[in-house]
Amino acid sequence: MFYLIGIGLGDAKDITVKGLEIVRKAEKVFLESYTSVLSVGKHVLEEFYGRELVIADRDLVELGSDEILSSALEKDVAMLVVGDPFGATTHVDLLVRAKQLGIPTKVVHNASIMNSIGCCGLQLYTFGETVSIPFWTETWKPDSFFEKICNNKQRGLHTLCLLDIKVKEPTWESMTKKKKEYLPPHFMTVAQAAQQLVEIIKIKNCPELSVTVDTLCIGVARVGSDDQIFKMCTLQEMTQVDLGPPLHSLVIVGTMHQIEKEYIENFAECGGAIK
Amino acid sequence: MFYLIGIGLGDAKDITVKGLEIVRKAEKVFLESYTSVLSVGKHVLEEFYGRELVIADRDLVELGSDEILSSALEKDVAMLVVGDPFGATTHVDLLVRAKQLGIPTKVVHNASIMNSIGCCGLQLYTFGETVSIPFWTETWKPDSFFEKICNNKQRGLHTLCLLDIKVKEPTWESMTKKKKEYLPPHFMTVAQAAQQLVEIIKIKNCPELSVTVDTLCIGVARVGSDDQIFKMCTLQEMTQVDLGPPLHSLVIVGTMHQIEKEYIENFAECGGAIK
Repeated sequence: MFYLIGIGLGDAKDITVKGLEIVRKAEKVFLESYTSVLSVGKHVLEEFYGRELVIADRDLVELGSDEILSSALEKDVAMLVVGDPFGATTHVDLLVRAKQLGIPTKVVHNASIMNSIGCCGLQLYTFGETVSIPFWTETWKPDSFFEKICNNKQRGLHTLCLLDIKVKEPTWESMTKKKKEYLPPHFMTVAQAAQQLVEIIKIKNCPELSVTVDTLCIGVARVGSDDQIFKMCTLQEMTQVDLGPPLHSLVIVGTMHQIEKEYIENFAECGGAIK
Repeated sequence: MFYLIGIGLGDAKDITVKGLEIVRKAEKVFLESYTSVLSVGKHVLEEFYGRELVIADRDLVELGSDEILSSALEKDVAMLVVGDPFGATTHVDLLVRAKQLGIPTKVVHNASIMNSIGCCGLQLYTFGETVSIPFWTETWKPDSFFEKICNNKQRGLHTLCLLDIKVKEPTWESMTKKKKEYLPPHFMTVAQAAQQLVEIIKIKNCPELSVTVDTLCIGVARVGSDDQIFKMCTLQEMTQVDLGPPLHSLVIVGTMHQIEKEYIENFAECGGAIK
């Protein structure tokens, strides 16, 4: 059996009881470590679970999945995933390959940013399409996500912006080499995301945009952890906000309802004053 | 302290380890029982948690919340919620009231239909706005959700349709009486939801609708449980599909990508043949 087990967003105790039972009895347990990032170290999980975990990095998951799956034909193999297993196509792909190899599969769900973002007080059913904001480089500055945010805003919908993370990314220089060299892990902050959005707005320079530098947004950090924090201000102001360590997400606010305002006024950092 | 604890979608073991620890040490634990529905009975939870639970029905949560919160000033009080705590405005409202009473609060997240719907193979970031489909009556046939589904479809986005549940709904006749009488609990099936959508399409009778009776949809039942099931067919065909016991949800498919098709072909009931 091949198990895909979501371990949630916070710490070791966010795994479900069902998930923990599988982890403790499985023959081998992988810890997927590149589509998202743990807020606690691998050793913290190992200590709590009472067993060894094998790090599954990008190379192993994308190129060596047969190695992971082959032993699942006869034994119980589990892969732990931050958040929920259906958060990344990589995991969906693994399930398909397992099925094609005749390996039974089972998924254990957990909280992910896609539903936990409700912690900022905005109702999940008034969110539109989710977007991803990638790190810009000198020569590569995509902005297709901006149109989606505007489409949502026009319909009064909020937009969850997932911010880029770079974990075990090979350097450009080493891409064609046998021995890859990797960039240090880095994570987009709400300030960086807001800055890219402000630049897009300035380049478009169109007075009819539904999203402007004065549009309200909510920056959230470390959702699901004890030191979770969120703050609401304009996009322009968000370029100066520091929410501390990763992971960060940014929500572009659509039309707010009374209960949403009330929650934010009560729970946002710095009062979350609504203009 | 007032704890709001998500218990996920499946059975007793879907609670997180963190949630279970709070449940076992709290002074009083309520089980919210009207915004969603448990797939296992209260006694199953009580046995697994090793403690007594107090059912919090609609009247208690909406009218008697002070009773719930007052004891949280000095003691630890927890409320268990099916799925994730931020799935219903009712719970957001409880957090706001607790804050205003000076009671510290803490939320323990879990999987909810809003992210677990990924189990049908469609990628969560290609879903648009979520809609709710209510039971029609003889005289009340709202259809505003249909426009939202069409808006999503035009942009290639999938739509999660949450289907109505009626738990402890007072009968019309008893609305003004002191002693309320309640309708038996009932749950909308995917066939009923598809039937209402087909009726709307026929009434609109417009050849340019982006959603027609031939639009593909996916019916899902008992997401997160061992007997979870999903099936893809046209809306017209879905009116004849029986997915068994509740809860059901319906997804109107937008534009499918290759990995989504592959997953559905491999995992949907009856092959999930894609036309």
